[in-house]
Amino acid sequence: MAHLLSRRDLDFLLYEWLDVTALTARERFSAHSRETFDGVLDLSADLAEKLFAPHNKAGDQQQPRMGDDGRVVMIPEVKTAVDAYAAADLIAAPFPEEYGGLALPSTISRASMAWFQAANPGTSSYGLLTTANANLLLAHGSAEQIDTWVRPMLRGDYSGTMCLSEPQAGSSLADITTRATPADDGTYRITGTKMWISGGDHELTDNIVHLVLAKAPGGGSGVKGISLFIVPRFLPDGTRNDVALVGLNHKMGNRGTVNTLLNFGDGTFPVGDGSGAVGYLVGEEHRGLSYMFHMMNEARIGVGFLATAIGYAGYLASVDYARVRTQGRGLAAADPAPVPIIDHADVKRMLLAQKSYVEGALALGLYCSRLVDIEATSTGDERDQTHLLLEVLTPIAKAWPSQWCTEANNLAIQVHGGYGYTSEFDVEQCYRDNRLNPIHEGTNGIQGLDLLGRKVVMNGGAGLALLAQTITATTEKAPADGEAAEFAAALRAAVDELVATTAALWADADPTVALTNSSVYLQAAGHIVIAWMWLEQLLAVGDSTGDFYDGKRAAARYFFRFELPGTGPQLALLRSLDQTTAQTDPAWFTA
Amino acid sequence: MAHLLSRRDLDFLLYEWLDVTALTARERFSAHSRETFDGVLDLSADLAEKLFAPHNKAGDQQQPRMGDDGRVVMIPEVKTAVDAYAAADLIAAPFPEEYGGLALPSTISRASMAWFQAANPGTSSYGLLTTANANLLLAHGSAEQIDTWVRPMLRGDYSGTMCLSEPQAGSSLADITTRATPADDGTYRITGTKMWISGGDHELTDNIVHLVLAKAPGGGSGVKGISLFIVPRFLPDGTRNDVALVGLNHKMGNRGTVNTLLNFGDGTFPVGDGSGAVGYLVGEEHRGLSYMFHMMNEARIGVGFLATAIGYAGYLASVDYARVRTQGRGLAAADPAPVPIIDHADVKRMLLAQKSYVEGALALGLYCSRLVDIEATSTGDERDQTHLLLEVLTPIAKAWPSQWCTEANNLAIQVHGGYGYTSEFDVEQCYRDNRLNPIHEGTNGIQGLDLLGRKVVMNGGAGLALLAQTITATTEKAPADGEAAEFAAALRAAVDELVATTAALWADADPTVALTNSSVYLQAAGHIVIAWMWLEQLLAVGDSTGDFYDGKRAAARYFFRFELPGTGPQLALLRSLDQTTAQTDPAWFTA
Repeated sequence: MAHLLSRRDLDFLLYEWLDVTALTARERFSAHSRETFDGVLDLSADLAEKLFAPHNKAGDQQQPRMGDDGRVVMIPEVKTAVDAYAAADLIAAPFPEEYGGLALPSTISRASMAWFQAANPGTSSYGLLTTANANLLLAHGSAEQIDTWVRPMLRGDYSGTMCLSEPQAGSSLADITTRATPADDGTYRITGTKMWISGGDHELTDNIVHLVLAKAPGGGSGVKGISLFIVPRFLPDGTRNDVALVGLNHKMGNRGTVNTLLNFGDGTFPVGDGSGAVGYLVGEEHRGLSYMFHMMNEARIGVGFLATAIGYAGYLASVDYARVRTQGRGLAAADPAPVPIIDHADVKRMLLAQKSYVEGALALGLYCSRLVDIEATSTGDERDQTHLLLEVLTPIAKAWPSQWCTEANNLAIQVHGGYGYTSEFDVEQCYRDNRLNPIHEGTNGIQGLDLLGRKVVMNGGAGLALLAQTITATTEKAPADGEAAEFAAALRAAVDELVATTAALWADADPTVALTNSSVYLQAAGHIVIAWMWLEQLLAVGDSTGDFYDGKRAAARYFFRFELPGTGPQLALLRSLDQTTAQTDPAWFTA
Repeated sequence: MAHLLSRRDLDFLLYEWLDVTALTARERFSAHSRETFDGVLDLSADLAEKLFAPHNKAGDQQQPRMGDDGRVVMIPEVKTAVDAYAAADLIAAPFPEEYGGLALPSTISRASMAWFQAANPGTSSYGLLTTANANLLLAHGSAEQIDTWVRPMLRGDYSGTMCLSEPQAGSSLADITTRATPADDGTYRITGTKMWISGGDHELTDNIVHLVLAKAPGGGSGVKGISLFIVPRFLPDGTRNDVALVGLNHKMGNRGTVNTLLNFGDGTFPVGDGSGAVGYLVGEEHRGLSYMFHMMNEARIGVGFLATAIGYAGYLASVDYARVRTQGRGLAAADPAPVPIIDHADVKRMLLAQKSYVEGALALGLYCSRLVDIEATSTGDERDQTHLLLEVLTPIAKAWPSQWCTEANNLAIQVHGGYGYTSEFDVEQCYRDNRLNPIHEGTNGIQGLDLLGRKVVMNGGAGLALLAQTITATTEKAPADGEAAEFAAALRAAVDELVATTAALWADADPTVALTNSSVYLQAAGHIVIAWMWLEQLLAVGDSTGDFYDGKRAAARYFFRFELPGTGPQLALLRSLDQTTAQTDPAWFTA
């Protein structure tokens, strides 16, 4: 069995660094302890290894297909795994006991989920999507909706989806055309087409609870007119609702997750007067997008975890391979026999890079999850500040892992040589699976606009100021000399440069100038934040001895020496207010 | 029909920049003219579009498989295309008329091949491998071998392979274990297993001519003992030779090219006394690797072209998509309707990056091919200098396109959003196909060792000195002011830094210190060389007006502003003689 994640690393991050047990002092988490946390992590690792990992390749090679009867056909191992996940109360894990949950802190439930994401990204998604759906309905649904739809989801009897995108509206939700027409009985009739719906149709559960964004009359144009509806596959009386599977998307990776094109109200399964699928309004009309965005931070952090988990699995696979594959000799002497390739400096470079990416990304994901926990259990200034920091970090927590943990998978293939390019090994699937993550839940380009256009300028620039202050506080904890001091100084300089660059970009308050290179800004800010995560880890390591801690030191060293300096030219480009891209006429891209 | 390559760009590079028609002043190419060159390019584009591109996706989705009778089964379109390629004399195109060839300069034949590589990497390989095989045998085979094996290959009746790697010996050919035992009749008996053999078995041609590296007795250990043999699938009398298809490798991409594991002399098809497959020595014993390396430069440049062609096709596909896909509004005004995404600065960034990568890589490939032509038709100092420059540039011409044109394909997916991640569009296949190129014909890690460990220090450092001098000569052609002057100054500074860095690395003449970060060196040197290619193109553009030339200016601007500055931190790291990677203990990569 290949390693999926490193429990040793999780223990370090959760307990030696983030002191997650301190969360149990907060009332919501007061039933918990290190023992209960460990129990969940043990269970997750065990279930992920035994029921999820073994069919990861089969789920990729035999992707869901539409059978002759129009139903989705999957390999049977998926249902076994999904049922076991629900039976272990993991769908409900983050929620209070009254919903059958474990009231787990987000930090622990994310760590739990990461085991499943590392083991089998495709199959893990069904439970995770259901948790996300339930999370939204618990926040904004009525008591009756919670009883009717959420409780069966938390038990694993129903599953949930999020239906936002349409064929013509992905990044731009203002342009969705799905309509909701009020019916006499207080429900709505939904008509329209939704695209890219993960888990949109299948036979894994008794029912599927679609959360659908649609425009109800009178809301005005654009995003303001959007409302949120529950549109189940089957109505409470067992009638099939008018939600039709039109097609499956065949993806390069992440193939185990069925991805669908759904028609709502096209008359395939007519109900009532046949004017549309039956939908139930969530909360108030025209506030749908705000409900959805409420959950968006967590969804985006979740994508970061998915990318991290896949990157981590590929990293560990390449370490295992590099230890056993022999090829070539060392540079030093005319060694008689070939050496394990892990002895070659260039292979160590590829392993250190992967380690610095995946462990750095995992640190950021857990750090953000702890912010989620603190925000949820605090009030006043603590809550506001935590919320603000989380807002600033979220686009990075989504985009950085999705870019760099995919790059980690690229390096994992390279370590394997030709073998890594074949389905005989696992890393080519990791690479394909991970490539989804820079695209969904807001493309990385959208994250760049969000970071530079909204987050760092929030509250008159308080968002960036808080981030800079928080990072600076870490640098001030560093000892006065040695490697940590050197890295702290480099990080401090980079943060100062980021702040100065941001000011330069917004000096004229002109978004057409400031936002031109927002993706470059996102990349530079991301590297600075991950360098911060590495300094945090290095300080947590302190003087501890042993291979594990030496590995942390080496990865921190790699990141500060090989990666962080690359932000210098990026920030310099940004400060120059370069308009090369904006000023390029589309006609110049001639063939 | 999607665009595959830009003929306008090829015309610019070949005629406006490289002045390829000047090659016709050399005797070998004297039968040629702009008209004959254009004829070959027209024919290639036409054939590639009509017979290769249409089955590119089918060749990927229905990859070659082993049928019940143990034979390789492919979709029929492959043979139609391969036959038409041969019938158009394109296998023989680079060779003299006496072999049925067109005596084309390498520069033109590479441009011709690139159309096929862009249209269908999988199917294009059969003809290209046969040309490479014939090229080697024309240089080192006997007259009889040429008549028996090469002439049928050039007619398309036979095809050729290169059998170097073995399951335990990829990068390290010194460790091959395939044996060659002399027989009484002057032939040899070959026994062993060869891995990763492209085109190793199929029914496309009447015979397959394997060129096999094997160890004959008495050659000493390591690479010195290696000899080169012709081992045909069928002997001249029609007997099946003892070459058995053991298995097919199932790759992530490049699936249209059958990739095989072959057993030589395992008794599946016993011949004579059954002691091995019959092999015919090429040239002299124990010189096999030097014959192979003779061809290696061209094979590596060929990989660079393959990567470039796939990158180019993906770039053009993403431009086409960005023109028609509407999404979002501009930053400037509250536009009423969604705009084509090519209007967004961040999409232009992704297109400009791709353009700068693929057109820069194509420029380098053609530049190197012209060096091949000059070397082949010159003597004395011109020949030696050309050869030396080619030696230095070859690892870059292989590695840089394979890294950055794969990155171009990554960006092409991102431009397409979710659609790019599906098989409905072509770019996900480009991304998978291109990922092979950093691996084969010497991994990019090997190219880094070759560049820093051998090429730049060749002839007492003459290799690097020549490269620096050649680049500097370009910078001296730049006008005294304006953008080209600015870029020339930046390039000059980067080259000076590269030279100083190289000196620092080798100051103690200790390879264990100098070569630790050879991959970083390769990346920095690659970016500097591509920046040089962009300055060359910018100077060739001069004051020309129109969209095409403005596009060249924009791509050059992008490369100099967004890409070249990244070499600064890389060279600084190298100059520090950083040993982070080498000093990392393998035990530190604990799970």
